[in-house]
Amino acid sequence: MQNKEIPYKIYLEESEMPQYWYNVRADMKTKPAPLLNPGTHEPMKPEELAGVFCDELIKQELDNDTREYPIPQEIRDFYKMYRPSPLVRAYCLEEKLQTPAKIYYKFEGNNTSGSHKLNSAIAQAYYAKKQGLKGVTTETGAGQWGTALSMACSYFGLDCKVYMVKVSYEQKPFRREVMRVYGASVTPSPSETTQVGRKILAEHPGTTGSLGCAISEAVEVAVSNPGYRYVLGSVLNQVLLHQSVIGVETKIALDKYGIKPDIIIGCAGGGSNLGGLISPFMGEKLRGEADYRIIAVEPASCPSLTRGVYAYDFCDTGMVCPLAKMYTLGADFIPSANHAGGLRYHGMSPILSQLYDDGYMDAVSVEQTKVFEAAEQFARVEGILPAPESSHAIRVAIDEAMKCKETGEEKTIVFGLTGTGYFDMVAYEKYHEGRMDDYIPTDEELAAYRARLPQV
Amino acid sequence: MQNKEIPYKIYLEESEMPQYWYNVRADMKTKPAPLLNPGTHEPMKPEELAGVFCDELIKQELDNDTREYPIPQEIRDFYKMYRPSPLVRAYCLEEKLQTPAKIYYKFEGNNTSGSHKLNSAIAQAYYAKKQGLKGVTTETGAGQWGTALSMACSYFGLDCKVYMVKVSYEQKPFRREVMRVYGASVTPSPSETTQVGRKILAEHPGTTGSLGCAISEAVEVAVSNPGYRYVLGSVLNQVLLHQSVIGVETKIALDKYGIKPDIIIGCAGGGSNLGGLISPFMGEKLRGEADYRIIAVEPASCPSLTRGVYAYDFCDTGMVCPLAKMYTLGADFIPSANHAGGLRYHGMSPILSQLYDDGYMDAVSVEQTKVFEAAEQFARVEGILPAPESSHAIRVAIDEAMKCKETGEEKTIVFGLTGTGYFDMVAYEKYHEGRMDDYIPTDEELAAYRARLPQV
Repeated sequence: MQNKEIPYKIYLEESEMPQYWYNVRADMKTKPAPLLNPGTHEPMKPEELAGVFCDELIKQELDNDTREYPIPQEIRDFYKMYRPSPLVRAYCLEEKLQTPAKIYYKFEGNNTSGSHKLNSAIAQAYYAKKQGLKGVTTETGAGQWGTALSMACSYFGLDCKVYMVKVSYEQKPFRREVMRVYGASVTPSPSETTQVGRKILAEHPGTTGSLGCAISEAVEVAVSNPGYRYVLGSVLNQVLLHQSVIGVETKIALDKYGIKPDIIIGCAGGGSNLGGLISPFMGEKLRGEADYRIIAVEPASCPSLTRGVYAYDFCDTGMVCPLAKMYTLGADFIPSANHAGGLRYHGMSPILSQLYDDGYMDAVSVEQTKVFEAAEQFARVEGILPAPESSHAIRVAIDEAMKCKETGEEKTIVFGLTGTGYFDMVAYEKYHEGRMDDYIPTDEELAAYRARLPQV
Repeated sequence: MQNKEIPYKIYLEESEMPQYWYNVRADMKTKPAPLLNPGTHEPMKPEELAGVFCDELIKQELDNDTREYPIPQEIRDFYKMYRPSPLVRAYCLEEKLQTPAKIYYKFEGNNTSGSHKLNSAIAQAYYAKKQGLKGVTTETGAGQWGTALSMACSYFGLDCKVYMVKVSYEQKPFRREVMRVYGASVTPSPSETTQVGRKILAEHPGTTGSLGCAISEAVEVAVSNPGYRYVLGSVLNQVLLHQSVIGVETKIALDKYGIKPDIIIGCAGGGSNLGGLISPFMGEKLRGEADYRIIAVEPASCPSLTRGVYAYDFCDTGMVCPLAKMYTLGADFIPSANHAGGLRYHGMSPILSQLYDDGYMDAVSVEQTKVFEAAEQFARVEGILPAPESSHAIRVAIDEAMKCKETGEEKTIVFGLTGTGYFDMVAYEKYHEGRMDDYIPTDEELAAYRARLPQV
């Protein structure tokens, strides 16, 4: 198949679509470290998690051995509504850059949630429904995850309660309104609807909220309402499992045309997109069947892999959730205002953290004005208006393609284009008007946060 | 092929994509009436149009005979970036409605402009570039056409000057910002940059502008700047020719699976989407080779087909453009505030007007709250958040499917889903909050506008 002409966009036939999620943990020699009980520092047992998470999802979370999880038919039916996502050959970008590199991107933005988040949202909603639950709760910052979960819950007739960071709720009314189209209730956080919300409001009147606080509220509502569980859109092992559909599809499409990538690039916030995209390729690498250079791209303002430490830390700023071993900047780290809302998490997926620590992948950090420069360059030739998060991967893909131009190497680059920027036009406006800055935390600041890590 | 299993989404292979646009005028026994010079009432000659439009586009505009126009390779290359658009089987909607009808929709929203407008924008930009022009001017209301043209001009390196109705410029800053990503200059209209703009501002200080005024400014800038021409996104014959790519793709996809539609439905503002979608089917109908029920759907607030008259009228409210024979409400008709910005035009494509007058298609009008009800119902089961314009077609598709449920008929319904509603969340918000009304013009009001039609 090597010489078959490569179309602009490779769409799999329905019959070629993945039948299973791939669990990369099965091929890891060093497994990701277990979640710890924040009180006892003992590994969390399934029964301890059962009040918070759905049963089947707990099983997936703790399963380091099963390599392939068949995707239930109901989820595959939903996937058919917006998948396969196209693997696009960036012919126009290559032409513009005059590079010998061959650039492909897996575009996950062609659905109403505008990102890859829907891949895991529908899975989590499905297992909640199957367990006979009434509904789920979650938090959302920028709103992509909340939107995805609203769509998934609407499809399965589940109630969906979203706690949205107050500043986003007010500044992104359109995201909120999309969630309402799908029947979700959206509450600005902190709110008067929970104990923790009332406590925070009493202590910090006028606060605009934080993701950590919204998590605490969503968890409280889940555990105190019969028939409800809490769901999360990134970081967790189960999320990376569901998101492996991105990578499995990518690999099937590449294999169909005999294409072998040299470099695979993805943006990394909590790790859901990058972990999903790279999973089958990482599997081959772990098994010694192939080699790829894998690059995680993070914002210079929130550099958990490149400047964090690998240690046990809280998953939330409220410090009520289990401890996870991960690359972290410290659970109370608040990045400077940047416009990649999905990349502002203080930690990183424990799976990716372990793989990075073991040397199986690289990480680079980039400044946001450089990111928007790449975003606009990409939009103008490839048509798609990318999300700020996704544009981190574009930046590094362009940088690598330009290196190829210097060296003359015809490398094949694959990157993940996680979503569209239609709800991020305020950020583009700031960029156009020269009002965007590139604040990077100092070593001293990072050290101060590190000093407050829990002692495990 | 009759019994081949129908996938959720039919994507054509690149090799199956249309090689030509289909000109339905070639099969019309009664041709659409010619444009008239507003001074002499004589048919416009090519040389009279040459200062305003590109030469090749004038040829296409006046050509009632050539059945097939090969699509230039450069345009086909651009089409490959976002086409083929999927023809989707609405399995989930059918299930929800419990109808025996089979429902398909051709989804044109999966590109950054968010609608089908890009199909003609890229063609018009191509011919402008080929003619060696520096740039083009246009007006935009809701912003879909302006966005599409910005993308097309960016691709070919043309300057793009957009006059955006001031109220939209201020209320839809995100649309404006998308155009700036693609390098367009966007000016709120009326502006101080043109004679006509200054005149209007002097006469009506504080005006929020109108499409008619923006057209006048864009035309003035085109004719007074060497190397510039004016382009338009709907109504014109050339636009319907380019948009035929929607219908030709749809027909290829249906034929591939042996599907024969009974009813074809599209929303109709100026007619670009409906005219494009139905063109090859209408061709078969005109040639007596097949029969289809074709339904144009318009807002009850702007009912040009269902309550207008078939007469010569001005294309713009400024009354400087040629006269076109069309179904019209009168060039100075201003519809009540409704949220389908793309369906607020006072007239209708001369081609569609003639076909409607000859009895080849039906038209219905629908009220906007009913439209948003259908939009939300659709979004919740099919995932896609539709544009208000597109939702007019959804409304009638659902109505027809429910009739099938009553009669037990297994009709096949195809409708055009022209775009996404990501920039229309203010309208959804009004709908959710019960603040949306359904103003319908009275017979007396319409008669008053009719009385001011030009005497031809």
